[in-house]
Amino acid sequence: MPKNRDVARANLESLYRIFTVPEAPDSTLGAIDQAIADDVNGFLQTHIVAIERNLEEIEADFASSAIPEEPTYVSEYTEFVKQHLVAHSVHTAAPGFVGHMTSALPYFMLPLARLMTALNQNLVKVETSKAFTPMERQVLAMLHHLVYRRSDDFYPSWIHNSQHALGAFCSGGTIANVTALWVARNRLFAPEGDFRGLAQEGMCNALKYRGIDGVAVLVSERGHYSLGKAADLLGLGRDNLIKLQTDSHNRIDLKLLREECRRLQDRNILPLALVGIAGTTETGNVDPLEEMADFARELGCHFHVDAAWGGPTLFSDRYRSLLAGIERADSVTIDAHKQLYVPMGAGMVVFKDPTALSAIEHHANYILRHGSKDLGSHTLEGSRPGMAMLVHAGFSIIGRKGYELLVDMGIDRARTFADMIRRHPDFELTSEPELNILTYRYCPAAVQQALSGAMPRQRGGINDLLDQVCLLLQKYQREAGKTFVSRTRLHMARYGEELTVLRVVLANPLTTDEILASVLEEECAIVQRGEIQALLQQVELLCTEVVA
Amino acid sequence: MPKNRDVARANLESLYRIFTVPEAPDSTLGAIDQAIADDVNGFLQTHIVAIERNLEEIEADFASSAIPEEPTYVSEYTEFVKQHLVAHSVHTAAPGFVGHMTSALPYFMLPLARLMTALNQNLVKVETSKAFTPMERQVLAMLHHLVYRRSDDFYPSWIHNSQHALGAFCSGGTIANVTALWVARNRLFAPEGDFRGLAQEGMCNALKYRGIDGVAVLVSERGHYSLGKAADLLGLGRDNLIKLQTDSHNRIDLKLLREECRRLQDRNILPLALVGIAGTTETGNVDPLEEMADFARELGCHFHVDAAWGGPTLFSDRYRSLLAGIERADSVTIDAHKQLYVPMGAGMVVFKDPTALSAIEHHANYILRHGSKDLGSHTLEGSRPGMAMLVHAGFSIIGRKGYELLVDMGIDRARTFADMIRRHPDFELTSEPELNILTYRYCPAAVQQALSGAMPRQRGGINDLLDQVCLLLQKYQREAGKTFVSRTRLHMARYGEELTVLRVVLANPLTTDEILASVLEEECAIVQRGEIQALLQQVELLCTEVVA
Repeated sequence: MPKNRDVARANLESLYRIFTVPEAPDSTLGAIDQAIADDVNGFLQTHIVAIERNLEEIEADFASSAIPEEPTYVSEYTEFVKQHLVAHSVHTAAPGFVGHMTSALPYFMLPLARLMTALNQNLVKVETSKAFTPMERQVLAMLHHLVYRRSDDFYPSWIHNSQHALGAFCSGGTIANVTALWVARNRLFAPEGDFRGLAQEGMCNALKYRGIDGVAVLVSERGHYSLGKAADLLGLGRDNLIKLQTDSHNRIDLKLLREECRRLQDRNILPLALVGIAGTTETGNVDPLEEMADFARELGCHFHVDAAWGGPTLFSDRYRSLLAGIERADSVTIDAHKQLYVPMGAGMVVFKDPTALSAIEHHANYILRHGSKDLGSHTLEGSRPGMAMLVHAGFSIIGRKGYELLVDMGIDRARTFADMIRRHPDFELTSEPELNILTYRYCPAAVQQALSGAMPRQRGGINDLLDQVCLLLQKYQREAGKTFVSRTRLHMARYGEELTVLRVVLANPLTTDEILASVLEEECAIVQRGEIQALLQQVELLCTEVVA
Repeated sequence: MPKNRDVARANLESLYRIFTVPEAPDSTLGAIDQAIADDVNGFLQTHIVAIERNLEEIEADFASSAIPEEPTYVSEYTEFVKQHLVAHSVHTAAPGFVGHMTSALPYFMLPLARLMTALNQNLVKVETSKAFTPMERQVLAMLHHLVYRRSDDFYPSWIHNSQHALGAFCSGGTIANVTALWVARNRLFAPEGDFRGLAQEGMCNALKYRGIDGVAVLVSERGHYSLGKAADLLGLGRDNLIKLQTDSHNRIDLKLLREECRRLQDRNILPLALVGIAGTTETGNVDPLEEMADFARELGCHFHVDAAWGGPTLFSDRYRSLLAGIERADSVTIDAHKQLYVPMGAGMVVFKDPTALSAIEHHANYILRHGSKDLGSHTLEGSRPGMAMLVHAGFSIIGRKGYELLVDMGIDRARTFADMIRRHPDFELTSEPELNILTYRYCPAAVQQALSGAMPRQRGGINDLLDQVCLLLQKYQREAGKTFVSRTRLHMARYGEELTVLRVVLANPLTTDEILASVLEEECAIVQRGEIQALLQQVELLCTEVVA
């Protein structure tokens, strides 16, 4: 018995130690802290995309479903993390990782993120965040100002207003888009007379009260998949997310939009919101926001702009005009973990009308009481970390001019890369960069020429084979781990069909023209593999038939 | 002109520097890194709750709505953060901060969180997370196993299954609860015959197809406010979140639940889900989960358990039985940033049926393709950070036995504190601790006695005054910043009315009995203030009337 008590006391003591802040920097934990930091720096300095190891092998390291019974030393666990997790992570910061929207971070984000973690503030309420609440409110006001450019005398009455919030900080663009459409839905069906509002009575009573058969959200086919989730979640149904075909520049076709709205009217369906995109995920294009704002006003519906990617273009004196009309949007989504270079997990939505968020306001007895400045009364999420601090740091340290430089560099580099692709005999540019995203595919000049003279059926046959080439090319390049591009499928007006294409996102300032040249070189080398050559020989054969 | 070009080049160079990982640990950034770490350690070692400074003063430091035009040195910004943000944060880790669910963190979480930030993985897809995807899948399996205890041969076929996920990792309990009810809603209205399902056709078509007038979610009045948000968001309407009065132990009253379900049937409203609570936010009580599971089966509806707080009680051999029946729930929410001691921003929901999440499955062309192991096809959120790693670290380093010790300590300490309150002549225990949360109020023994003999009207008068005492007490204690308790309003069976009470959450292992004694001492001292004494004199007067 006394032995058991000794064990219990020893366990308790080691538990206390776990929760105690080390006083000396040369303590064991201090040393581990430093070892981890060194390992991370080593990882960040390694300019490859990933180590070649397939997922099934990695899964073997994470196969047990039992929570370990006994504690482990921190040092031991750290070794596990280094060998099995860090070593097999993706180098999203590598200059050759140009396939997705995750880029390198400014180094100062790391100590500040650690500080944020250590403070462990909870932004849902002032009682667990104090100075973090005014700080987040300032960040939202700064973003609001970036988008809407209201005059200086507008902000003092709203920025720290206990009744309202200029926007909502959240974990990412999906929650931001959902929040925007949630607000739009509840405002369209606000309380009125006997009807206590959709929030209270639900979707069906709302439609009945208004005597309509449904509500629809309209966006181009380039709209982000989060809008489909929102339509499902909010009870509209995915059928009522109407995705319109784009023009040859991947922008919404306004004529089709008008036609669709007429059809909806005939079906007694009300447009709830138009969604404009400022930087489509796949091609980086910007919808005609001015015209969409005009049309939304004509319809009397909510106008949301999903600027999750492209929003920071507003920092640039040179390119800001590409987003003209965004200041007329009722709500705008901007992701901080994209082109604000903040670590993963930070999105925002701002509303033109500073009272808009009251449509989703909620309270509770123990927090979010009426009249408190608790941010949680106007957010979809509850408890939230102090990520806004990292946006605050970015705004302060990089400044408007620093972000402008980053934005300009990305767009300029995309144009340079587009030129390289155009001039290369073996590649075809499949979408021109408007911002800093472009798509292309492997398609030798001779094949391009044959395609332009081919009959639709012949064209389909050739493109099917090129799709397979593209798919294998992307796969082998990813697996080799030197550089990385992503792939998607795009409808191309030129051929009147959907193609598999490679996609490049240029937001890492450390990506050079030389690295981009090496991306194409590597692809040319991969194409030499027998498997791909066999496909290309079939392509050649079909091309001969076209010419014949 | 050349001057402008020089400025541009200088800017560009400083920008590159910002994104470059320092090679030497004694670099400027290395030094700043260390200075921030030291400052944080100093903050964490200061055992006060907050510095006395009101919010309006702090807001003055965050008043501008303009994003700074020029960059700032990292060192300069760091000074700003230390003085204006860190110094005015809430010491959520302080042992005297016992008012909310945010506790101290194990120190090892800090270097690991920094590592997670540095790797900047995006869990939405394998291409931006690689080893983090199997790691998160393992964490979900471990939590699934903790709750459902399926046999060892169950997990290998599901844990890394490309078609399914055992649960969803998310930013917190609110998203977890929303996800659970979203799944429940879409499963209740799954595609069938001509009907393509609610996800596709929307709420109204779904109700029409089934010929019902609505669906309801039932929970006790102690249910978390996120359920109200969910009812609004999902288009059910807040009216259809039915909150039932609890018994004297703050648990759902099963008789009332049955009656309410009959009434719903009469109104042609279908029960969508019963929600049981394992650790109510305000009082830490656990609903009768076995009986609720029986009743849910009888009704044929979804049974969700919100164990955001109390879930980790399952680690304890001694107290696990308090949650008996949880293994029969269709879905269970557990927050990692609560009793798993992970930093803010980590929640999880697991589903008994490993195919349940297919009810909200979604795909896109560039990611989340069919057959991929991308976790994003089964989550509400899109891009997400690698927070699961910190849960993995907690499970591994603390182990089941370590968590058990933490859980047991919290429950035992709550019982000790309840005894202290009961024995104290000036306080009244308003809810017994079942887990590690309790409530009480300032109410001297003589007043308690008078209340027991008072007429309802007299009782109401006295309690109104005591509510004001409670409110001021909590406010002054919070402002003084030495210790912190929260407050809420609770319906108390004993008096048949709603009272304002103080609330204490005991999860910080560094909180000692001495600190708890000092909390009560401080409260007795605050009560001596003239403002509160005046209220207490009125109470005394009313008590005399009762006795007379």
